[in-house]
Amino acid sequence: MTEYRRLRVALLGAGAVGSQVAGLLLRHGDELADRAGAELELAGIAVRNLDAHRDVDLPPELFTTDAEALITGADIVVELIGGIEPARAHTLLALGSGADVVTANKALLATHGPEVFEAADRVGASVYYEAAAAGAIPIIRPLRDSLAGDRVVRIMGIVNGTTNYILDRMDTEGADFADVLADAQRLGYAEADPTADVEGYDAAQKAAILASLAFHTAVPLETVHREGITAITADMIEEARDAGFVIKLLAVCERLVDEGAESISVRVYPALVPRSHPLASVHGANNAVFVEAEAAGPLMFYGAGAGGVQTASAVLGDVVSAARRHIAGGTGVGESTRANLPIVPIGHVTTRYQITLEVSDAPGVLATVAGLLSEGGVSVATVLQTVAEPNGEEGGTARLIIGTHRAADEALSATVDSLAASEVVERVVSVLRVEGE
Amino acid sequence: MTEYRRLRVALLGAGAVGSQVAGLLLRHGDELADRAGAELELAGIAVRNLDAHRDVDLPPELFTTDAEALITGADIVVELIGGIEPARAHTLLALGSGADVVTANKALLATHGPEVFEAADRVGASVYYEAAAAGAIPIIRPLRDSLAGDRVVRIMGIVNGTTNYILDRMDTEGADFADVLADAQRLGYAEADPTADVEGYDAAQKAAILASLAFHTAVPLETVHREGITAITADMIEEARDAGFVIKLLAVCERLVDEGAESISVRVYPALVPRSHPLASVHGANNAVFVEAEAAGPLMFYGAGAGGVQTASAVLGDVVSAARRHIAGGTGVGESTRANLPIVPIGHVTTRYQITLEVSDAPGVLATVAGLLSEGGVSVATVLQTVAEPNGEEGGTARLIIGTHRAADEALSATVDSLAASEVVERVVSVLRVEGE
Repeated sequence: MTEYRRLRVALLGAGAVGSQVAGLLLRHGDELADRAGAELELAGIAVRNLDAHRDVDLPPELFTTDAEALITGADIVVELIGGIEPARAHTLLALGSGADVVTANKALLATHGPEVFEAADRVGASVYYEAAAAGAIPIIRPLRDSLAGDRVVRIMGIVNGTTNYILDRMDTEGADFADVLADAQRLGYAEADPTADVEGYDAAQKAAILASLAFHTAVPLETVHREGITAITADMIEEARDAGFVIKLLAVCERLVDEGAESISVRVYPALVPRSHPLASVHGANNAVFVEAEAAGPLMFYGAGAGGVQTASAVLGDVVSAARRHIAGGTGVGESTRANLPIVPIGHVTTRYQITLEVSDAPGVLATVAGLLSEGGVSVATVLQTVAEPNGEEGGTARLIIGTHRAADEALSATVDSLAASEVVERVVSVLRVEGE
Repeated sequence: MTEYRRLRVALLGAGAVGSQVAGLLLRHGDELADRAGAELELAGIAVRNLDAHRDVDLPPELFTTDAEALITGADIVVELIGGIEPARAHTLLALGSGADVVTANKALLATHGPEVFEAADRVGASVYYEAAAAGAIPIIRPLRDSLAGDRVVRIMGIVNGTTNYILDRMDTEGADFADVLADAQRLGYAEADPTADVEGYDAAQKAAILASLAFHTAVPLETVHREGITAITADMIEEARDAGFVIKLLAVCERLVDEGAESISVRVYPALVPRSHPLASVHGANNAVFVEAEAAGPLMFYGAGAGGVQTASAVLGDVVSAARRHIAGGTGVGESTRANLPIVPIGHVTTRYQITLEVSDAPGVLATVAGLLSEGGVSVATVLQTVAEPNGEEGGTARLIIGTHRAADEALSATVDSLAASEVVERVVSVLRVEGE
């Protein structure tokens, strides 16, 4: 075997991803050395509890509870603790001591990204985070490097596997949200506390990271509009199917142009996607990111969005990249956020909507509804009226499905409020945005 | 605007891609400077003929016929001439003078890759070639960097837009190869001389590049098995559809393990792909690369495989990467071919096959055919016999569609020869490999 310079890799965390990273690093060490041009020595694994169960059998002598000591002697620090602290402190310590950092920590990057990247810039180190968005799918390098000469117009991503698994099973089985969620928890596709996934927090963090890269703009997490999927019912999914749509939780990052002035919008919500769109056929817990760029046109990246060993693949790719940079010399390449485009609040974002109403089946109802939409500045594209319980007579309940032209979110919301308050509307069944047409 | 260090970019060639690169570089110069951290000055455009028509209006003073002078003063040389010479000489001159090279030249890399990469290594320069395989689709960085810590098991790529366009139209319209080709030429999807595309030469070059990256092995072009699509008929496509398949020209790069010893196979041919496979829904002139890695699992990359402005996106991403490296300092990262796995000749490669025969509809025919297959060591998985012209009587012609288990290519070929020579076989209608099951 060739003699290589030895680089010390410190691993922080030995959970589902960390233990796989350690296992692969030990098992494929020689092969990775040939690729990196450097021997990657696993210097240690910092954990909170030395006796916790690990998914992979690892030499006990590698484990330590002294993360700080491990970090300060390392060339490359792999942070797989997750959450903000102590991950943030460890990351800053690592960068401060000149180590490159590899991280899968979307929460940290989405909330403290600028602080982390500035710390790296100060010492010429690099932060690698291919695993922080869409798991094993290479999406960070394509956005950061391959598309660096292009102008991204729009990203639509299925970036949360749990919600896609739930929505996909609801779609294929006609099952209810609560039933599928319970089953997903039993099968390990959803956490005991599913809030981060089903309320869209996880997707919002990834959206912030992707938008920041795509638009060269710092995107604070609080500017990302977020809605979850807990209100999605089996009925809504069936109705979507009848109209040629599937409901997906999307992370949408969009470049907007208004009278020559550019801005961006970053938002996460369940949306109606046409069945013919490539994102509609992303099944199970898989992820996919659809990118439209001015010159490149539409691109799609597809694969496993989570899972210990899948995410470990992305982490180890970053470790090899960091090692190559160490050997090549030179400073790390910082993040470019020099475009710093303004971020539009959700109220000003326009999309098409589909509004489903239960109305009394009486004369003049359609005219009243149409009048309220028109007053609210919402233009109607399509209307479908069906009788909920057909008895051949007036006086029952009818269902109105209204497809709108593009409308601003705040105008739409106000209009839905006035519809809900109207005497002729018995119930607003659902209001869903349409994406990907 | 921030004051940046100025980097001189020399453009060689102003064809469909080159003129778009120049146009975008001039139009988005300030934006690219912010991303690269360097001003990208288009120092000149070397062409053979100053008066040729260009797709994009460009300042005439940029053009020169003196490529050598332009190259020697440049920091980044963008080679978009194509072909071997003078592209090879210009590339070596550029690297020799310390410039980074960005190239879309698959022919050069597939035939002189090692020479080019060694020249770069000697001076610590870099070669970027995101545009050399699958056009605008980011596939080089994902393979080279994101998957550098993983072990790629298999790549199946639709990497030639012209042949996918032709096969897709044959599939959707039931049209014949010659008719669709003529129409594709009229519409600009195929060249006047379509040999490079329809005979698989273009796909073979891209396969060599992808396999080399994926398996860290130098893959000489002559080791890539290559078959084109000129023998594909409307009948074969219809029969494939009836059996649940679509015919696609695939570039297959595979890691093989035989008794613990690893080797690779790289091959291009039309194959039967199950309609449920993601590659089956790649339509028109689009490209897609399906990658399976040990840890990451299946991944897919999809987008436009060709086109001037699409390919220009990939080229400009490389220009920004090269500029970032110049500013960061350090040497370029060389190609790792240290695994250098043996490349298996096509005869030893095993796949499943579908063999369609026209046989005489007489007693004992099936037994004879089954006997010849068995003698040849080809194991039968499925048989479908249909009467070509059903008249309710024996003595006519029947069609036998035989699906085999995995068989080695040379055993299969020899068996097909003996079938063709048999008295009971009137015609070998088609022999197609099955991929993606």
